[in-house]
Amino acid sequence: MGEFDLIRRYFQRPARRAALGVGDDCALLAPAPGMQLAISCDMLVEGRHFFADVRPRLLGHKALAVNLSDLAASGARPLAFTLAISLPRADETWIGEFAAGLLELADQHDCELIGGDTTGGPLNISITVFGEVPSGQALLRSGAQPGDEIWVSGHLGDARLALVALQGHIRLPAALLEQARQRLETPTPRVALGLALRGIASSALDVSDGLLGDLGHILELSRVGATVDSRLALPLMAAAAYPATASWRLEAELQQQCTLAGGDDYELCFTAPAARHAAVLAAGAASNTPVTCIGRIEAQAGLRVIGADGALLQPHWKSFDHFDAD
Amino acid sequence: MGEFDLIRRYFQRPARRAALGVGDDCALLAPAPGMQLAISCDMLVEGRHFFADVRPRLLGHKALAVNLSDLAASGARPLAFTLAISLPRADETWIGEFAAGLLELADQHDCELIGGDTTGGPLNISITVFGEVPSGQALLRSGAQPGDEIWVSGHLGDARLALVALQGHIRLPAALLEQARQRLETPTPRVALGLALRGIASSALDVSDGLLGDLGHILELSRVGATVDSRLALPLMAAAAYPATASWRLEAELQQQCTLAGGDDYELCFTAPAARHAAVLAAGAASNTPVTCIGRIEAQAGLRVIGADGALLQPHWKSFDHFDAD
Repeated sequence: MGEFDLIRRYFQRPARRAALGVGDDCALLAPAPGMQLAISCDMLVEGRHFFADVRPRLLGHKALAVNLSDLAASGARPLAFTLAISLPRADETWIGEFAAGLLELADQHDCELIGGDTTGGPLNISITVFGEVPSGQALLRSGAQPGDEIWVSGHLGDARLALVALQGHIRLPAALLEQARQRLETPTPRVALGLALRGIASSALDVSDGLLGDLGHILELSRVGATVDSRLALPLMAAAAYPATASWRLEAELQQQCTLAGGDDYELCFTAPAARHAAVLAAGAASNTPVTCIGRIEAQAGLRVIGADGALLQPHWKSFDHFDAD
Repeated sequence: MGEFDLIRRYFQRPARRAALGVGDDCALLAPAPGMQLAISCDMLVEGRHFFADVRPRLLGHKALAVNLSDLAASGARPLAFTLAISLPRADETWIGEFAAGLLELADQHDCELIGGDTTGGPLNISITVFGEVPSGQALLRSGAQPGDEIWVSGHLGDARLALVALQGHIRLPAALLEQARQRLETPTPRVALGLALRGIASSALDVSDGLLGDLGHILELSRVGATVDSRLALPLMAAAAYPATASWRLEAELQQQCTLAGGDDYELCFTAPAARHAAVLAAGAASNTPVTCIGRIEAQAGLRVIGADGALLQPHWKSFDHFDAD
């Protein structure tokens, strides 16, 4: 099956919101009056962002999820996306499964596939996503103020725990591995929370490279510092609640590393004035998303982490960097 | 040098037209009132769209040029683009040269880099480009009418000739190879022509996979047929004018294949009512772009090609398809 047949069969659907979708040189899209387009792109590469034997349906989900997560972090409502994909071969079953996972998540968020490119080559998935946000209301990384509280959504660290186990470095009880693996393979973009935080959060981003490293981007762009209390952050690892067995328990050092610097979480980290504490809790409840306050923005530059004993931690690991990563 | 340093050093510049550019979760962009955004994406893969030893500066140019060519085919004015790139290693010299070629062409078209993603992996460049076009005025593939004339811009076939020579299948005189290679490596997106054709052309696309195959997309979407006169099309290969030498002359079969089904031309193929013949010539002159009428749209389905002897050709090669290509 050739390139054009592939596109037609699996990816082409009638244009809905877009004035023109897949099949012409360009797609045509216009945000509603008073709206800005929020645009983000993420590229996923085999062996780096996913294993070669990943189930294509899950990969389709994740490829879009990590992009929707960027919209969520900006408080933007998903509109549409483009997909460029290079494939080692035109394996119809694989492509059908990939498209199913991708379009299922897209439909959940009413996010329309409006264009793309298909080519041969090492497996690589590049998605650019478009959302809309009322002009001037996007959540930025640069708005944190001293005194603001630092929050994170959902759970942190479980995706990294799964990765470490799948790489063979540790063994996990089967049920825990399955649970952690779901977090790694099918992350939930926090779109509803991002929308609910408009007008409440002072800054936001999504945690893709590890909490402390990503929070560092907020600190840098907002020109502030922060203290994070690991006693509040560490329990966010769902695996922390998993009962120890004769052959397994969650090591404190591993828990710390996964939670604070794990990566692949696709949770939101955001700040809000302390006076909006109740509003943040309400936004979490309204979007059915757990939110936890883990620290405070401070005028003093730098990021300080309080350890289990109440003293400052000196973490020796750092943010996940796609060139330094093993 | 890590991912964030790389981005900062080579790709991050202050936002100009965009409300927010590189460095946050999303870029923010809004078309002017009454304008639609035209969006296209193209992915370039090593070994398939370029050779491993291509000069990175030229690759930077080409990666954006093929995307701008899609905007040109829609009659859209370039605004901005995102770049996702995977690189086998963080080679600073390579990246600097690539960025220089990319941003030089971007600046020529006042097209702003607003976001992206950098990762490790086999070399892959994925660009999504944004242009604006007055609502309802985009050039589509679906508007050709029986009686319309078929036009192409510039030259056809030279890029393919260079490819065939660089693959070692034929030998070319050095000066001709250099000339053809420039067409392959640094194509000129016909942006000015595309803008000039708004309101004149009835349909348009850019020739990336070969003239006859790409014209076929116009025929299919417009539900029409066409006759192309190869006696008008074949001279469009610049190499056709190159003097024969003792050891080289352009074989008629090769010329036919390169011109009619070569690919990588990034010229515009478009249709316009015969009554607008002079207006098309004026648009070509105003945009300093050669335009040549090569055939006619007809109600009868199918694509007919008139050969050198005035009889119908039966080409046995077809459009370039990224999965079928060698």
